[in-house]
Amino acid sequence: MNQTSFYRPVSGLDLLKRIDGDARERGCISEEALGRIDDVDPHVRAMTAIARREAVVAASASASGPLAGLPVAVKDIFDTSDLVTSFGSPIYEGYQPRSDATIVTLLRRNGGTIVGKTVTSEFAYMAPTGTRNPCDIGRTAGGSSSGSAAAVAAGMVPFAIGSQTGGSTIRPASFCGIAGYKPTLGLLPTVGMKCFSWSFDTIGLFAAGVRDVAYLAQVLSGRRLAVDVAPASPVFGVPDGYPWTGASANATTALGTAVRSIERAGGRVRPVRFSTWMTDMIDAHETIQSFEAYQTLGYEYDHHRAELSAKLSEFLDRASALDTATYVNACALMEQAKVRLSELFEGIDVLLTPSARDEAPDGLGSTGDPAFNRNWTLLGCPCVNVPGLWGARGGPIGVQVIGRPGEDARSLAAAAFVEQAIAASAGRPRLM
Amino acid sequence: MNQTSFYRPVSGLDLLKRIDGDARERGCISEEALGRIDDVDPHVRAMTAIARREAVVAASASASGPLAGLPVAVKDIFDTSDLVTSFGSPIYEGYQPRSDATIVTLLRRNGGTIVGKTVTSEFAYMAPTGTRNPCDIGRTAGGSSSGSAAAVAAGMVPFAIGSQTGGSTIRPASFCGIAGYKPTLGLLPTVGMKCFSWSFDTIGLFAAGVRDVAYLAQVLSGRRLAVDVAPASPVFGVPDGYPWTGASANATTALGTAVRSIERAGGRVRPVRFSTWMTDMIDAHETIQSFEAYQTLGYEYDHHRAELSAKLSEFLDRASALDTATYVNACALMEQAKVRLSELFEGIDVLLTPSARDEAPDGLGSTGDPAFNRNWTLLGCPCVNVPGLWGARGGPIGVQVIGRPGEDARSLAAAAFVEQAIAASAGRPRLM
Repeated sequence: MNQTSFYRPVSGLDLLKRIDGDARERGCISEEALGRIDDVDPHVRAMTAIARREAVVAASASASGPLAGLPVAVKDIFDTSDLVTSFGSPIYEGYQPRSDATIVTLLRRNGGTIVGKTVTSEFAYMAPTGTRNPCDIGRTAGGSSSGSAAAVAAGMVPFAIGSQTGGSTIRPASFCGIAGYKPTLGLLPTVGMKCFSWSFDTIGLFAAGVRDVAYLAQVLSGRRLAVDVAPASPVFGVPDGYPWTGASANATTALGTAVRSIERAGGRVRPVRFSTWMTDMIDAHETIQSFEAYQTLGYEYDHHRAELSAKLSEFLDRASALDTATYVNACALMEQAKVRLSELFEGIDVLLTPSARDEAPDGLGSTGDPAFNRNWTLLGCPCVNVPGLWGARGGPIGVQVIGRPGEDARSLAAAAFVEQAIAASAGRPRLM
Repeated sequence: MNQTSFYRPVSGLDLLKRIDGDARERGCISEEALGRIDDVDPHVRAMTAIARREAVVAASASASGPLAGLPVAVKDIFDTSDLVTSFGSPIYEGYQPRSDATIVTLLRRNGGTIVGKTVTSEFAYMAPTGTRNPCDIGRTAGGSSSGSAAAVAAGMVPFAIGSQTGGSTIRPASFCGIAGYKPTLGLLPTVGMKCFSWSFDTIGLFAAGVRDVAYLAQVLSGRRLAVDVAPASPVFGVPDGYPWTGASANATTALGTAVRSIERAGGRVRPVRFSTWMTDMIDAHETIQSFEAYQTLGYEYDHHRAELSAKLSEFLDRASALDTATYVNACALMEQAKVRLSELFEGIDVLLTPSARDEAPDGLGSTGDPAFNRNWTLLGCPCVNVPGLWGARGGPIGVQVIGRPGEDARSLAAAAFVEQAIAASAGRPRLM
């Protein structure tokens, strides 16, 4: 790995053990988070706004609830009543919303302390960001939730909130070597998030490990999602090929390592084959998000086009040519695919695939390819990036556990099984 | 009817015929709308903000598209980049959003001229508003889309946008003697609307008559919804009873008049009976909207509770006690009911019921009872208020056409059939 690594994720569950109800310890942890941001963020560039020290200390001192004392960072695509919110766009430079997004309300109600906002691609689309990968600052952290993934990977915060419309949570989690979780569509409310595509926009969560992210998911959703016991040995389905950009040799090797670790730990792995409708969903995703974004970003496109990136402006130009019939047809194909999804899961508990086609690319010119994520976002499946593996070029490379919609608990448990199996195979928590 | 009636709805389709591509005529119509607002709104109190005359004239002069030259009013629950948006709450007094809600973008892109914002109940919940019914200023216009319904009924605008989470479109349309249309859930985007319940919030449209509202729906949705030809004679199902507040004698008489008119016009009417799951949906609606509103209005409840009305504050107090398991169970019952909904429509095209339990109540103390609307909002069904009938107390009293989700075109056509049948029976357009 590159000399200049800032990779040092901190487990939220470990911090809770350390706090153990002690208000002073809570204050220390908040101070440490701000200190780490001060030290590291000039290099990593994950944050767009940082809360005032006094506000953070006061909030953490008076906090109660299952996240009490834990610092959290929030992607700058969510409204915050006390921190500037710019959606990664100069159009909203200095914009101060009047209220909090619902996910921010849920964080605060459960005792979380919002220490800052994190870098997002412009309106969570594909334009590159300046955030550097904490594992290697010469590379991208991925996108569009660049800053949230990097802030967790660099140990600025134990938890961060992101979003996923294509692959904006799972891909940066894979690139940064942390756990990322995209819940079943609709499990967590997107109210107060700048909308890109109402059919796909989903909250994403980041944490050091799978058990950490499952705990955060349980707290925010009110569902039993935490992985409290050793998960039973699941049956994993591994696709024998993909209708999108193929996996790199690097990602294929990592997946093979994960499969061997799973089998060694007593899990079963079966091959699965995608039907042709899975191919159709690639176009359907593009059609649906294009049609919807041309409406949701209509104000910006119609009144501030010169302030949009070329990438987004050209995307919306193309989107403007789509007719409603094409969109309606894509939505109908999507609904049929959701019904046929059960075939894919016959005889298995979850799917296991690469999280991205490769480890993070070099440079900041691209946030990487979301091909391994988009169809699952469209289908509404829970997805978990499992960290712990490293690629041939020295960067993290994750594997993705994908479940049936609504089976978030089973998916998180299976992901914890994989994480544990990988760690056991390596004989140590992480192959660094 | 009361002496002080301001009821004078103007058909949008008639205005389009009058314009016939003439830019000067478009300007005249905008001026007339502003003039009518000046004359009438001091009595009716439908508007919260009125666009500057120069802006309106400029917009209508340069407008193109299927709504070119038509003035539109928008419920003050939707963001507008150029008009103050207060969601009916003192918490947002003077609040100026930075962008337009998506429905506002769609109106502008199609040539509509936004002439102002309209009165809404606080956050579109149940608190009474000061808007007076144009048919009788001693009565409520209904709610929560009070101002949008009243602005159309008083002829200030041919079209207005509202919303419905319980009965906020169909009920005020019924009370004000105009057409109201709540599309299939998700047909029109709610992005940029202040969210109350993400499972139920739906855009609502108002116009003088059913053909007008169908035209507006077609323009905004891009779907073929306009009623261009005489609709074929549909089969209507009329429930033999209701599991909620019963219909008044007044509403029952109006429904009977509608049924006889339909039969005289060649339509068929069959009795239908609700299953017990319809009763369960009353509680499910309350549970789901309570649980979600406690989250979506979390910022306001947690930080500005003293500025909430007692009605909303007490609702949210109760909502705070709901646990996730109760919510999840209500959502599961809702999903089952959506599947069983097809039973209800066996052998019929649409349902026909009262739009509300009675004509508008006297005074401004209540916006009326949404019992006849809530379950259909929960089930995602398209609903249309058909105007044209008047009750024993001299106010308008509508009947409601309800269709299967996705069958908006069929529902609007059936509603146009009812409207025409009622007019034919009466021998004149409206019984006044």
